[in-house]
Amino acid sequence: MSEPRRVTAAALIIGNEILSGRTHDVNLMFLGTELNKLGIQMREARVVPDTEEEIVDAVNQCRAKYDYVFTTGGIGPTHDDITADCIAKAFGQKLIRHPVAERLLRERIAKMGVEVTEARLRMARTPEHAELLINEVSGAPGFKVENVFVMAGIPRVMRAMFEAAVPFLEGGVTLLARTIGSYVPEGTIATALSLLQDDYPDLDIGSYPFFFGGRPGSNLVLRGPDQGRIDEAGSRLRDLIVDLGGDPVEGGIEVPDTDDD
Amino acid sequence: MSEPRRVTAAALIIGNEILSGRTHDVNLMFLGTELNKLGIQMREARVVPDTEEEIVDAVNQCRAKYDYVFTTGGIGPTHDDITADCIAKAFGQKLIRHPVAERLLRERIAKMGVEVTEARLRMARTPEHAELLINEVSGAPGFKVENVFVMAGIPRVMRAMFEAAVPFLEGGVTLLARTIGSYVPEGTIATALSLLQDDYPDLDIGSYPFFFGGRPGSNLVLRGPDQGRIDEAGSRLRDLIVDLGGDPVEGGIEVPDTDDD
Repeated sequence: MSEPRRVTAAALIIGNEILSGRTHDVNLMFLGTELNKLGIQMREARVVPDTEEEIVDAVNQCRAKYDYVFTTGGIGPTHDDITADCIAKAFGQKLIRHPVAERLLRERIAKMGVEVTEARLRMARTPEHAELLINEVSGAPGFKVENVFVMAGIPRVMRAMFEAAVPFLEGGVTLLARTIGSYVPEGTIATALSLLQDDYPDLDIGSYPFFFGGRPGSNLVLRGPDQGRIDEAGSRLRDLIVDLGGDPVEGGIEVPDTDDD
Repeated sequence: MSEPRRVTAAALIIGNEILSGRTHDVNLMFLGTELNKLGIQMREARVVPDTEEEIVDAVNQCRAKYDYVFTTGGIGPTHDDITADCIAKAFGQKLIRHPVAERLLRERIAKMGVEVTEARLRMARTPEHAELLINEVSGAPGFKVENVFVMAGIPRVMRAMFEAAVPFLEGGVTLLARTIGSYVPEGTIATALSLLQDDYPDLDIGSYPFFFGGRPGSNLVLRGPDQGRIDEAGSRLRDLIVDLGGDPVEGGIEVPDTDDD
């Protein structure tokens, strides 16, 4: 059996508002989940401010290191929307007004009955060798340059642009996951878990502790490309939890994002 | 009037589970907000996997570039908790079992009535010149080495460790913000907004578009160190919105994180 290739990606979340705490990013979670379904593992994410040098550096570092890079944010009509400029600079390409993007944008503007402004037409700017990510949701398309996919920050628009990006993506191995939770604390199961990891080097065994209802517990996640191996390790893990006095919960124990109680 | 110094920070979110989309990070938003209150601007955030080389590289890049670095995650008792090891390596320090951390941890373990395991004692490991971030919530403290603050991933524990970090932090200028929202679309106000930005180079004017209830609109944020300047620019912005047929909403128009409707 030939080993399927690991295909990797990075996300670049562009926007001061995420760093200042004003806006809560929800795109990273979507991208991580959807890319894995395609056999692409997200290996890094960066949140950078609306600053040319920072964006250009991050794009160039990430596109050299990962198979794909997905950016979100900074492609609207306002002065702080500089992502297209930065992508052109990162690739050493001229920034143009893309003729197809302009036509689509003008059609949408006419349909909306709003004014054609220079600001709105900014959204048709792309690096000269970009391919468009045309979608039904936004008037202006996203675009790709080589392995870098440039998408909007608004989640609904980002998702539509991502759908348009999918045909360009070549996936490798899809990681499957099985989660088993219990109220056995991490510190109690850690040694046995480490031995299990040693026996299954082809799996990535993660432990995610929580306090819920005043009790410590942990969700244990087995990830890997082979369902049979995950099932085998999962059976052993369930036995371990029972031996330690716990009650294994398939799928994990759901805990809220915050635990302020 | 002497110019107060800009103090900067980066966040390093450590954990495969954030990248795979399994877990939704909530620590970044907390850190961005709390740091700004202290006069520290978050300038970058990175999410990296539980991989030594990635963590060491990111720590070394960020600690050279920013005044402070805050890491979250990877300091528990299990085999995938390797943050302490990585921080020691990044600073070229030996990893020790910190005597005070060990004492505190053993006290907590005794109080909880659980077993002292090698795994649990892993949580007392720090680089040799670390200072502890002692807190009431976790048995094992977080720690700092020079300008790098190492905290847990569980939000409740992270927040307690952050409180313990605050006395070490020296803030600079605090950025104040004023948000004005309306159903004037970005593309309509963009040109005027850009001119306003030119008139107020000391402010950072951001535009955050949304679709809500089927209508496009935008929240406009004025950020800067001087309340008087923000108020002045804010009055002009309200007038602009009214001129464009909008109804300015002080504080902005609240829209949900996702807009799936």
